[in-house]
Amino acid sequence: MAVVVPLTLIIALVIGVLSIIVAIIFSILILREDPGNEKMVEISGYIEDGAKKFLWVQYRILSIFVLVLFVVILLFLPSDLTSNNVPVISGDMNWEQAIAYIVGSVASMFAGWLGMIIGVKANTRAAQGCTKSIDKGFDVAFFGGSVMGLAVVGSALIGISVIYWIFQTPAVVLGFSFGASTIALFMKCGGGIYTKTADVGADLVGKAEYQLPEDDIRNPATIADNVGDNVGDIAGMGSDLFDSYVASILAAMILANLLMSGASDAVRGTFIIFPIILSSVGLIASLIGILLIKALKTKDPGKLLNFGTYIATFIFAALGALFVWIMILTTDGITDAQIVRMWKDYACVVIGLLSGVLIGWTSDIFTRDDKAPTRNIARSAQEGDAVVILSGFAYGMLSVVPPALGIAVAMSLSYFLDGVFGVAMAAVGMLAIVGTVVSNDAYGPIVDNSRAIAEQGGLGEEVIRIADKLDSAGNTAKAITKGFAIGAANLAVFALLFSYAEDVGVDFTMDLLNMNILIGAFLGVVAPVLFSALLILAVQRNAAKMVDEIRDQFENNLKILEGKEPPNFHSTIEIATKGALRELILPSIISISFPILVGAIFGVAALGAFLVGAILSGFVFAIFMSNAGGAWDNAKKWIEDGNLGGKGTATHKASITGDTVGDPFKDTAGPSINTLLVVMVLTATIFLGLLLLINGGAGWLGQFLTP
Amino acid sequence: MAVVVPLTLIIALVIGVLSIIVAIIFSILILREDPGNEKMVEISGYIEDGAKKFLWVQYRILSIFVLVLFVVILLFLPSDLTSNNVPVISGDMNWEQAIAYIVGSVASMFAGWLGMIIGVKANTRAAQGCTKSIDKGFDVAFFGGSVMGLAVVGSALIGISVIYWIFQTPAVVLGFSFGASTIALFMKCGGGIYTKTADVGADLVGKAEYQLPEDDIRNPATIADNVGDNVGDIAGMGSDLFDSYVASILAAMILANLLMSGASDAVRGTFIIFPIILSSVGLIASLIGILLIKALKTKDPGKLLNFGTYIATFIFAALGALFVWIMILTTDGITDAQIVRMWKDYACVVIGLLSGVLIGWTSDIFTRDDKAPTRNIARSAQEGDAVVILSGFAYGMLSVVPPALGIAVAMSLSYFLDGVFGVAMAAVGMLAIVGTVVSNDAYGPIVDNSRAIAEQGGLGEEVIRIADKLDSAGNTAKAITKGFAIGAANLAVFALLFSYAEDVGVDFTMDLLNMNILIGAFLGVVAPVLFSALLILAVQRNAAKMVDEIRDQFENNLKILEGKEPPNFHSTIEIATKGALRELILPSIISISFPILVGAIFGVAALGAFLVGAILSGFVFAIFMSNAGGAWDNAKKWIEDGNLGGKGTATHKASITGDTVGDPFKDTAGPSINTLLVVMVLTATIFLGLLLLINGGAGWLGQFLTP
Repeated sequence: MAVVVPLTLIIALVIGVLSIIVAIIFSILILREDPGNEKMVEISGYIEDGAKKFLWVQYRILSIFVLVLFVVILLFLPSDLTSNNVPVISGDMNWEQAIAYIVGSVASMFAGWLGMIIGVKANTRAAQGCTKSIDKGFDVAFFGGSVMGLAVVGSALIGISVIYWIFQTPAVVLGFSFGASTIALFMKCGGGIYTKTADVGADLVGKAEYQLPEDDIRNPATIADNVGDNVGDIAGMGSDLFDSYVASILAAMILANLLMSGASDAVRGTFIIFPIILSSVGLIASLIGILLIKALKTKDPGKLLNFGTYIATFIFAALGALFVWIMILTTDGITDAQIVRMWKDYACVVIGLLSGVLIGWTSDIFTRDDKAPTRNIARSAQEGDAVVILSGFAYGMLSVVPPALGIAVAMSLSYFLDGVFGVAMAAVGMLAIVGTVVSNDAYGPIVDNSRAIAEQGGLGEEVIRIADKLDSAGNTAKAITKGFAIGAANLAVFALLFSYAEDVGVDFTMDLLNMNILIGAFLGVVAPVLFSALLILAVQRNAAKMVDEIRDQFENNLKILEGKEPPNFHSTIEIATKGALRELILPSIISISFPILVGAIFGVAALGAFLVGAILSGFVFAIFMSNAGGAWDNAKKWIEDGNLGGKGTATHKASITGDTVGDPFKDTAGPSINTLLVVMVLTATIFLGLLLLINGGAGWLGQFLTP
Repeated sequence: MAVVVPLTLIIALVIGVLSIIVAIIFSILILREDPGNEKMVEISGYIEDGAKKFLWVQYRILSIFVLVLFVVILLFLPSDLTSNNVPVISGDMNWEQAIAYIVGSVASMFAGWLGMIIGVKANTRAAQGCTKSIDKGFDVAFFGGSVMGLAVVGSALIGISVIYWIFQTPAVVLGFSFGASTIALFMKCGGGIYTKTADVGADLVGKAEYQLPEDDIRNPATIADNVGDNVGDIAGMGSDLFDSYVASILAAMILANLLMSGASDAVRGTFIIFPIILSSVGLIASLIGILLIKALKTKDPGKLLNFGTYIATFIFAALGALFVWIMILTTDGITDAQIVRMWKDYACVVIGLLSGVLIGWTSDIFTRDDKAPTRNIARSAQEGDAVVILSGFAYGMLSVVPPALGIAVAMSLSYFLDGVFGVAMAAVGMLAIVGTVVSNDAYGPIVDNSRAIAEQGGLGEEVIRIADKLDSAGNTAKAITKGFAIGAANLAVFALLFSYAEDVGVDFTMDLLNMNILIGAFLGVVAPVLFSALLILAVQRNAAKMVDEIRDQFENNLKILEGKEPPNFHSTIEIATKGALRELILPSIISISFPILVGAIFGVAALGAFLVGAILSGFVFAIFMSNAGGAWDNAKKWIEDGNLGGKGTATHKASITGDTVGDPFKDTAGPSINTLLVVMVLTATIFLGLLLLINGGAGWLGQFLTP
């Protein structure tokens, strides 16, 4: 594969390194901030220990898992096995892929570790900042979150650039992406189960049975709850978007490599690094957005966060055009048709980004407390628990329609412009400003924690009010970023699917009229349903254990409730940590074994249809669960703000039921589906060489199920 | 189309007529039974009036709707329009199709009317029967239900046989099926909204706020609730299965006509009527099963109902072989290969039937109160409202997996045996004993009503206990029949989809790698989600109105609660009736316009993929909602039987929340999806001629979205 690696790739590498440097500078600045009084430092210390413990246990298990898969990639995809029917991408590069797999895993773990450590350091400092001004509190929290955003994007870009520079083929980047993806699966599912085990457990006993306020330090699960916010929303969400980000770039690289095989080496090289360059432009845009936010005064923190998103979008669109022009100028022998094509692809990138913003915006409409859906859900709480559930359920389902249309339009337009490569570039565009998205998202748990610490550290009403204001801005931003993340992951897996199909070969079709294809699609549609069911049951089982533990502590030591002795935070953290690990085994096995089984039994075309089915139903369930959960949450908060009778009423109680049902929807099952999809598509791609050995890719039974 | 119509078709006609005669004899016998005391007759009269009113208003609106579609079929599918690219099925026969459309509508309305009228007459008579013995009560209720089962199957078989005899082509039977389908859409959605408006309204105010017991005559919505059981579960379910039944036969007829075009006219004729004959054998088996049940003593009514299903299955398998043999003997010039094919098709029929029983059985496991899922859901009620919802939700999702595998295996095996025609015959087999299924299902609301009448008519504790026993048997049977109905409809729409595809032409493919196909599948997956959301919101909106009305009555007339004056049943019935009609307009428009729009915009291949997507996601949501609802219902009943503390505890209260959420899941949205799917596939098939005129079937935009 004599691909020329253009020197412009150095831009991506430099920007990636710059991003990590900025992240480290931000980290140092945050560590220099005042961590507050002794009580605050103590509580923050508990949270930090819990978070570190979870990461430590997770990473230990993950290391074993990663090593096993390393060996599998090394041994079971040897080039001589696939030499008869060698697909262009997989096979032939197993050593390199296996090493890239390790690198991808480590890069994702590094980003997760740095982001989370700074996140837990930032919380008490942001709370202390609120004692000075809302500006100060916001700054600490926002830059704390930015560390995660910059670490994710920076390490992904560095990893991809370096690997492509060394091995000069997207095939090895596939290994990197698969590494990021398996980490994301563990972090997202594990973190999601952890956070909701603690949250639901703390609410059910502490709030409902003993009427303790939110974040009360007497509640044994309160620290676990705070830890959960960090491991679920910072580490989990970060690794999820790391995963989607790498996958979108990879898909475009693979497609460029395959589709441009007729072009000159120089042109082909330019097209392959095209997605990397545009992603690095997105990182510059995110960086500028982040620094601009620093320059502004914090009147309305929610608007400020969204301003960062919009400004990054705008800067990206403008700078992107400049870089396309530079790439065209620096590519030897590029034809006019190829120049037109690059501009078309640039248009696809912009389409992708705009539709991402649009999808985030519709999620916002369905979950904001000043819009009709959430208001109606809140009002339906007046008719009792059952009606608020039905209402949120129905609006959650309705909310699937606008983003589905958004994705359909984005895919149609970009496909019309430049076929499947256009779709892949739209995915790159949608994920380009992921630095901003992750930053905004990581801001949420930091301010959530600071609010708790402000309360527990006794900083007084006024400071808590400021912390509350910062917290509610986090929730607004979160709704948008979540819609964004799901939409982006969806488009990225579609792009990966196309690269999978191109990889199989020219004559590859997935005609739904063939029974094996239809069965594949059927099983695919069911897979995310099974996966979500297992995650929700996992939360429910663990929360029950948590409930027992909290009740035991209250009953066996009366001094806890009197506030004379601290509860045993260690045991609740232990339950959440161990439970999360135990419960993610089955979902992990499913996500890796299902694609391989379907491909082996029904053939690689059926596997393609399986992936399509899974992507489509996964999209529906992810959006439905996230938005229903978000709307229930905000309906409850709106009632707590004094509407419809406010706190303590039956209406409020019903809205709490809605919120509790929504918790695992929006923070465990819903967002985990993203990582499931990416892992399944990458597993299919990486094991393709092996699957093609079974009756030439027809699978054991596929031949009996075609006309 | 020179197809020979074999004389064996007369068998089907005779059996159909026989079935209607038996239904009428049963009706007369039931009318002769003692209707009980004055109070019972009065209450039963209210129910009858409410049910008749609903039917009257529905049928009046339906007549207009049917006439409009009659004109549409007549004018917009004229043969000269489609002469350039005339599909084998549609086009060319518009007059005949339009008339058959009217006949299909009327036949379905007739079956619904007869079944429901006898159903509402049977309830008070069954209650009176319980004063004599459980046997007597069971007999009246069961034969009351059988009237619906026999009327449905009899009129469907007569309609299909006569239309095929006269017009000698399945194309006209398509019109009949479309007629049945539009009626089913209105009856099922309308009935579903009606029944849950009344049920949820009655529960929320009467039970929750005023602590009235179930079926208390002081509750203004109690009669509407009883009417709802009849219109939703008898008329709605009957028209739904009428619809699936006709659709499955039609699909096999169309495929036989297209696939056997190379065979002699005699053989082709035999294959076309093959599904009709086997369906009539299923009716004989159902009839024998029903009569056998009469001969047995009622120890355990639940087992007796299931015994009827199993015995009908067995008789059908045995008799079916005999009839295949007769058909082979009476077909001139049938080749050995064709004889083997008929036996293979017979095997497909048996496979279909067995997998139907299997699917019903797994639904049973997920909803029975003596199995783990329902027990776990009940136990989770101890942790509050939110946890019982989460648990039911998760088990409902899990319960999708076994029937999905069942359908996948049935489709694979039957496809392996005889391609798409094999799949169509499996659908025929699954629906063959629908007479028994509908009978068992209609038994449910009759005994549910008799229990209410026994209570309200003051028949005493012992009689209520007997009526309760009959009622609980109804619930067990219902779980099985519901799973059965969804599975059968699913297979039937797949068969219809294949006939749609065969109709488009030989070169027709639906390759998911084409963007228009992928977009089609995407929109298809979303369609049932939107549809379900609208239905649930409809129930919620109407129930809110019902709640206001009930509260008004209690507050404005204190004598109602004291039992001195009857409440105004009329106004609650009015709310349920009008609300149901108003709210089904949007879902109806969606189900007919979406397929036409997708076909017109993205082309007929994308429309095929749209249908696949809708069938798959529709299956998931239908099973999930039905089983979650059933499990919540039974978990509540299990707690009410005295487990986990029994009635009046917080656990019981939480289980009621689960049940109320489950109500519109299992009785409105879930089962309505079946009819949505059938209507969409038939709409696509009937408007195919028109859609092929748009850029040769590529649609307005389809050409831009293919490579």
